[in-house]
Amino acid sequence: MSKKPSLAVVGATGAVGTVMLDILSKRKDVYGEIRLIASARSAGKKLTCRGQELTVVALTPEAFEGIDIAMFDVPDEVSKEWAPIAVGKGCVVVDNSGAFRMDKDVPLVVPEVNPDQVKNRSKGIISNPNCTTLSMIVAMGALHKQYGLKELVVASYQAASGAGQSGIDTLRDQISKVANTSVGDTAGDIHKVISDHGPFPAPLALNVIPWAGSLKEDGYSSEELKVRNESRKILGLANLKVSVTCVRVPVLTTHSLAVHAIFEKEVSRQVAQDVLKNAAGVELVDDPENHKFPTPADVVGTDPTWVGRVRKSLDDANALDLFVCGDNLRKGAALNTAQIAELVAAEF
Amino acid sequence: MSKKPSLAVVGATGAVGTVMLDILSKRKDVYGEIRLIASARSAGKKLTCRGQELTVVALTPEAFEGIDIAMFDVPDEVSKEWAPIAVGKGCVVVDNSGAFRMDKDVPLVVPEVNPDQVKNRSKGIISNPNCTTLSMIVAMGALHKQYGLKELVVASYQAASGAGQSGIDTLRDQISKVANTSVGDTAGDIHKVISDHGPFPAPLALNVIPWAGSLKEDGYSSEELKVRNESRKILGLANLKVSVTCVRVPVLTTHSLAVHAIFEKEVSRQVAQDVLKNAAGVELVDDPENHKFPTPADVVGTDPTWVGRVRKSLDDANALDLFVCGDNLRKGAALNTAQIAELVAAEF
Repeated sequence: MSKKPSLAVVGATGAVGTVMLDILSKRKDVYGEIRLIASARSAGKKLTCRGQELTVVALTPEAFEGIDIAMFDVPDEVSKEWAPIAVGKGCVVVDNSGAFRMDKDVPLVVPEVNPDQVKNRSKGIISNPNCTTLSMIVAMGALHKQYGLKELVVASYQAASGAGQSGIDTLRDQISKVANTSVGDTAGDIHKVISDHGPFPAPLALNVIPWAGSLKEDGYSSEELKVRNESRKILGLANLKVSVTCVRVPVLTTHSLAVHAIFEKEVSRQVAQDVLKNAAGVELVDDPENHKFPTPADVVGTDPTWVGRVRKSLDDANALDLFVCGDNLRKGAALNTAQIAELVAAEF
Repeated sequence: MSKKPSLAVVGATGAVGTVMLDILSKRKDVYGEIRLIASARSAGKKLTCRGQELTVVALTPEAFEGIDIAMFDVPDEVSKEWAPIAVGKGCVVVDNSGAFRMDKDVPLVVPEVNPDQVKNRSKGIISNPNCTTLSMIVAMGALHKQYGLKELVVASYQAASGAGQSGIDTLRDQISKVANTSVGDTAGDIHKVISDHGPFPAPLALNVIPWAGSLKEDGYSSEELKVRNESRKILGLANLKVSVTCVRVPVLTTHSLAVHAIFEKEVSRQVAQDVLKNAAGVELVDDPENHKFPTPADVVGTDPTWVGRVRKSLDDANALDLFVCGDNLRKGAALNTAQIAELVAAEF
């Protein structure tokens, strides 16, 4: 690195943007200027990053002038419009929306799994995977290297903040509404105290909702297809068999996943635990005798992918079952984006 | 039926017992006397059943005199001791504990799936399956009949009441403690407001816990092995491949399961939906376009097994993914026990 590249954070005021400023303040300081960009509505707002107060500027083409790397955390349609504009202004874009993830000219990068893909950015854009995929893929990448992954069956336990700040606000509001009531025992009585579902299709407090994203073909949700398609692209396994059911749970932040993984070779519980223990970015907590396993309450706010409940399938010598947790705003979004940006920054 | 058999409800004051009295009050009245039995601590308590006030009597051998059918909902060790005593007093016992479920001389019955097994009670005892198994098995039995089941991969979303009344009380107390606080954003901060875990190994409010039951071999929980072993016994498939990860979620009542089911034959989404729509004891709610799928908030307090999110696997023509909900205190416990007892009552 011969110069410190300048960085823009686009979407600095959202749930992920807020975590990003915290992450940028704590990781190795590899940047020159950091510029915060958001919608015109948030322009002028003052936020703190690296101990400095910064004023948010509005998203305009001029906002990207003099910027080397631009991290985007904005809705798909905003990324679709603005990432090419930023590239046109000379930026490398690291985008956390779904807009470009499956574009064959845009690499989808997890630094612990496929860091070399950062170079293949013929459009000047690198995509950051979906938070649900990211919450498990570092662990699965390590196990794939050991055993060769053939198939994944995944059930998710997704946090409210996967739907952004309004998801967090909605769940907090609903929890305060059901607290100290007797609702929850009779069909539909939760509806009597909760009428505002926020970004969710049903009440989330004292409930689980088997839905995340929008409807795609054959009854699948967009979130389920993302996990399948993105896992295949990141691992470079075009024919990986993947079945996913995505479910929202009343947790504020940290996605969990129950994963049944089938490999090319016979697995060993002990070896799998050792692989995970030694994998970069993974923390193994697997001592059920002492009730030690990852839970969102302990994982939230941390960087690694946490893995526990590692078991060899009783009926398939080539299969493992495990439970994985990752902070969906950190590794699931801001942290991985920051890690990708650091790989780009190292080129300067 | 020529006489109305007399019935004892053992464990009448527990979470399942309370639901049982409601169920007995609403179903067809096939019994003569109904006698409520509980621990000495609860003796003398007055409870209402079939519109009548009944006084709870203490669990003694004499309590079973004149009783034809005794339904037990008590801990394993109490069933182990007292079910043979009740049989000795001439009762047929329908037991909802784990004490006898895997005994080869005790049938494990789900009336919609294997009603004929009721007759094979050489010990005078019929077992009711575990609530997690019961929450999905009616739906899986119907699909098995159509396609021949080969393998199940299950992830559960289990309600607090699966751990009894103390589970319900604990979750309600924890919800009131986290309401109107800002906890949930930082690792461990939920621990600052929740110190009483009740029957759970970690805080449950705003959290999920990948554990239910006690530790068995190779890292499995007792609950996970129950789902495997009981599914095999109920379906009569001794070699059914079953992988299960059991997870507790902050829902009061109603277990949910994400099920990946592999069959002998190629499946069709439409046919599977039709099979489920026409299956006794199953309600299909599968219209994701209009956000219609089962959630615990709508299922709690109802009798059927609710199924939604039916999808044909994109990578395995013989596999279906679905989401199943069942009230763990009703079909998962009291209702199925009552249904078994009615099969026995019909013999009188």
